[in-house]
Amino acid sequence: MTYCLAIRTESGIVFAADSRTNAGVDHISTYSKMSIFELPGRLFVLLSAGNLATTQAVVNRVQRDLEEPETTLNLGTVKHLLDAARYIGKLSVAAQEEHAGALEKSGINPECSFILGGRIDGAPHDVHLIYPQGNSITASPTTPYLQIGEIKYGKPILDRVTQADMRLGQAAKLVLLSFNSTLRSNLSVGMPIDMLLYNTDSFSAHRQTRIREDDPYFADLSRMWSEKLRDAVAEIPDFEI
Amino acid sequence: MTYCLAIRTESGIVFAADSRTNAGVDHISTYSKMSIFELPGRLFVLLSAGNLATTQAVVNRVQRDLEEPETTLNLGTVKHLLDAARYIGKLSVAAQEEHAGALEKSGINPECSFILGGRIDGAPHDVHLIYPQGNSITASPTTPYLQIGEIKYGKPILDRVTQADMRLGQAAKLVLLSFNSTLRSNLSVGMPIDMLLYNTDSFSAHRQTRIREDDPYFADLSRMWSEKLRDAVAEIPDFEI
Repeated sequence: MTYCLAIRTESGIVFAADSRTNAGVDHISTYSKMSIFELPGRLFVLLSAGNLATTQAVVNRVQRDLEEPETTLNLGTVKHLLDAARYIGKLSVAAQEEHAGALEKSGINPECSFILGGRIDGAPHDVHLIYPQGNSITASPTTPYLQIGEIKYGKPILDRVTQADMRLGQAAKLVLLSFNSTLRSNLSVGMPIDMLLYNTDSFSAHRQTRIREDDPYFADLSRMWSEKLRDAVAEIPDFEI
Repeated sequence: MTYCLAIRTESGIVFAADSRTNAGVDHISTYSKMSIFELPGRLFVLLSAGNLATTQAVVNRVQRDLEEPETTLNLGTVKHLLDAARYIGKLSVAAQEEHAGALEKSGINPECSFILGGRIDGAPHDVHLIYPQGNSITASPTTPYLQIGEIKYGKPILDRVTQADMRLGQAAKLVLLSFNSTLRSNLSVGMPIDMLLYNTDSFSAHRQTRIREDDPYFADLSRMWSEKLRDAVAEIPDFEI
């Protein structure tokens, strides 16, 4: 599995993806599940979960469509972020269908889902979740985050604390706490974590970082969070028996 | 869905189950998912998740086997707790198979899983998780808890804090914190929570309680936990951008 998460705040978007892929437990690799498309006056960040062959086919096709001058529909020509989400949805459904018959025979699920976020000049920043069926939803002010993959372990902390008016550094902290809970409870989600902080004042993806096991901030955050959770549990009175 | 949890400590076992059953989102009922069998020199507590018709068939059969004097295999005659788990597993597989054909045609999953815990005089207390296929596992000193149903939301806090040498009142607090996280993030798990604290000094299930929304301990626990989590997040430095 995979865990990808994006939080949209008023000042930008924090994107994060783990990098473990596995086919069973004995075929583990590290792949980046974050693709970045920086274009004049527009920035797109794409996070992917699901069948790796399908997601790679989609990402490669997006890249090729940008490079081939005769393509009229690509991330450089779409007018709105929603159109970009629809475009990714169509590529995804097509990529899944291409090998669906053979994969089904082997009991392999070709499905994949995506988070697409960014900004096109003239419109506000936004983030979409694209389902395996090609349709999509966006984040909202009351639920400013979107998740794909192994989403349940890291959801309770998001449900309690996420707010649309957080600073980007706060949102990034919360993203890493959500990953921390997921990493502890599920083997199929693994370090390093690719994280990108997009601030709406530019179309640049320069605040990009790869967080490894020995990252001092992540190590401190993990240790402090464990201690504080244990303290919090201890401070609540026991159930009286 | 359902959420059931049991923590085995050195001094006993805490059992808990939510009570929401649903077929779709508009057919919601409240059923107890905890069945208690108090017999001379032995106590069994059974928690169930999955297809309600299947789990009810199993529980009814267990009860009938106890009442019919010609039955040689029942909870009153099994020698070990593992034999009881095997017995429940067999009844479960048989109940699933009975209607499997018709259910499959309607796209309904007949599967169910159980947690069976308690004690038979002369042996230590223990707790088993019985899979839909009828096989089972027990808790261990390093992982002293077992979960069935909607298990992921409430797992991170258990992974961090549960220890086999906890007092029963501490374990009960942790059980309710795990339920609190699950209830917030998943609509299909609902109050009230049936909880039972079994202390190995007896074969009695008298420490049984039904925790409703307005339960003062649960309300305090939920409020304190939310506050402490928010404080803990605030006390960790933001990610530097």
